[in-house]
Amino acid sequence: MDTVAKLSSYLEKTDYEMRVIGVPKTIDNDLMETDHTPGYGSAAKYIATTLQEVIRDCSVYTTKAVTIVEIMGRDSGWLTCAAAIGRIVTGYEPDYVYLPEIPFNMESFFEDIENAFKKHPNVVIAVSEGANYGNGHYVGEGTQSGAVDVFGHKYLEGTGKALEIAVKEKFGCKVRSIELNLPQRCAAHLASKTDIDESFCCGYTAVTAAANGLTAQMISMKRKASEEYSVEYLPISVYKVANEVKTVPKNFINDRGNQVTDECLEYILPLILGETEVKYEKGLPKQLIIR
Amino acid sequence: MDTVAKLSSYLEKTDYEMRVIGVPKTIDNDLMETDHTPGYGSAAKYIATTLQEVIRDCSVYTTKAVTIVEIMGRDSGWLTCAAAIGRIVTGYEPDYVYLPEIPFNMESFFEDIENAFKKHPNVVIAVSEGANYGNGHYVGEGTQSGAVDVFGHKYLEGTGKALEIAVKEKFGCKVRSIELNLPQRCAAHLASKTDIDESFCCGYTAVTAAANGLTAQMISMKRKASEEYSVEYLPISVYKVANEVKTVPKNFINDRGNQVTDECLEYILPLILGETEVKYEKGLPKQLIIR
Repeated sequence: MDTVAKLSSYLEKTDYEMRVIGVPKTIDNDLMETDHTPGYGSAAKYIATTLQEVIRDCSVYTTKAVTIVEIMGRDSGWLTCAAAIGRIVTGYEPDYVYLPEIPFNMESFFEDIENAFKKHPNVVIAVSEGANYGNGHYVGEGTQSGAVDVFGHKYLEGTGKALEIAVKEKFGCKVRSIELNLPQRCAAHLASKTDIDESFCCGYTAVTAAANGLTAQMISMKRKASEEYSVEYLPISVYKVANEVKTVPKNFINDRGNQVTDECLEYILPLILGETEVKYEKGLPKQLIIR
Repeated sequence: MDTVAKLSSYLEKTDYEMRVIGVPKTIDNDLMETDHTPGYGSAAKYIATTLQEVIRDCSVYTTKAVTIVEIMGRDSGWLTCAAAIGRIVTGYEPDYVYLPEIPFNMESFFEDIENAFKKHPNVVIAVSEGANYGNGHYVGEGTQSGAVDVFGHKYLEGTGKALEIAVKEKFGCKVRSIELNLPQRCAAHLASKTDIDESFCCGYTAVTAAANGLTAQMISMKRKASEEYSVEYLPISVYKVANEVKTVPKNFINDRGNQVTDECLEYILPLILGETEVKYEKGLPKQLIIR
């Protein structure tokens, strides 16, 4: 959107007639001035589904174990919030959800795990890659370990791995960390129909806006106040969408900062609804690869 | 199957009339005396699908990058073989596939990557977690780095991560490692219909065998020699299924030991065919979780 703004600004100055409309897209959902972004719903659906499957897998064991799932999101926790959607669908969700918006505290984290163990032996945790101590240091920098690799570089073990090491040392139980990694942004076989449909509508609205003479706009989605979920697509001035990051608001996070609220889940749920028709050829989903 | 054998043996000795039939199941596909094992086809379908999606994701970038996908399999490379199925379906597959069956050589590995870069900027590699140097040491032990964590423990970084570090140092390009981790064994939304159907048949055959008075058996699947794929279900003596691991045979691996052969893929393909009907509730696949 910054590029759209700069380009629009240049074209205005040089009086060159060309229309520029920004079509938003990011799985991170961190764009200002729009209810959400195309891409987010599908990634959220993949994350919510995978967490259900992981919780189920973990539930078959009776020995104490902590499973930590690291989810994308350096500056905002939107994708990690989606890990908890199961709460309002199946009744199952990760025990805790930690976001970059709330300073991470290792002692509180250990207390949380102790409390979860009182309820069941299989603790499942969702954490943003961007979890941080609120002092400019990320959890993924390692457990203040000073671990170095063969080249003397500080070893960046990743958020999940760092917590795995910390929990292992503290509780001595089985611990596993899972980094959802690339699949959360490319698992097209599990796309949200709502997301795919809205993506087309954003593109359509952008082309229509340009054809109607508009320029320097971004297509924004505005959620209607109606009972049933629906959005309208509005061109807005791209200059309003600064280089700011939209973070998860306070009312979407519980007081202790270790879970999301129902309000948050009610916001996300409509975005993951519906499935696209996946065509399979010889057992694999069909898709076009051009390398 | 070892338990089935021990139990059967004990019951025979004590002359207690109870029938024990082993129903095979392991995603690892490493059981002797059966064409394949229930569970493998679904895990293989997930792995093959995810590799297609990852290759597509990587293909949109034009800068040099190596993406390393670590797949389960400590002692056998069956699951990792499945990463290459795209070759006979879409024409796209990882550039290389490294299995525990072939001693890993870092210099050959670097040569392989150099050769791949001559063809395209996005190199994708599949590697078994059990990749090893053939001398009792695993690649995942780390790049002989002596890296230690805060507690002075040798840092076990994992196979993908160890290769990521090695490639980064050698080529200086963007490198990412992805550990498929738990989802490859629990992503029920992407099960193979062939696998699920065969699983039922194995169970049915086991119950029938027991009802007919058999004991100390394992249900084995035998692939028929017909053009079209089909299997028959045969009870065999469980004592024949020793505590041995069935590894990937030589004719399934190419001469350089860095890819699987078409013969291997023709063996796997029928096992991933067909999709189960996934029912969705509020955007998530329905499944039963009991914790």
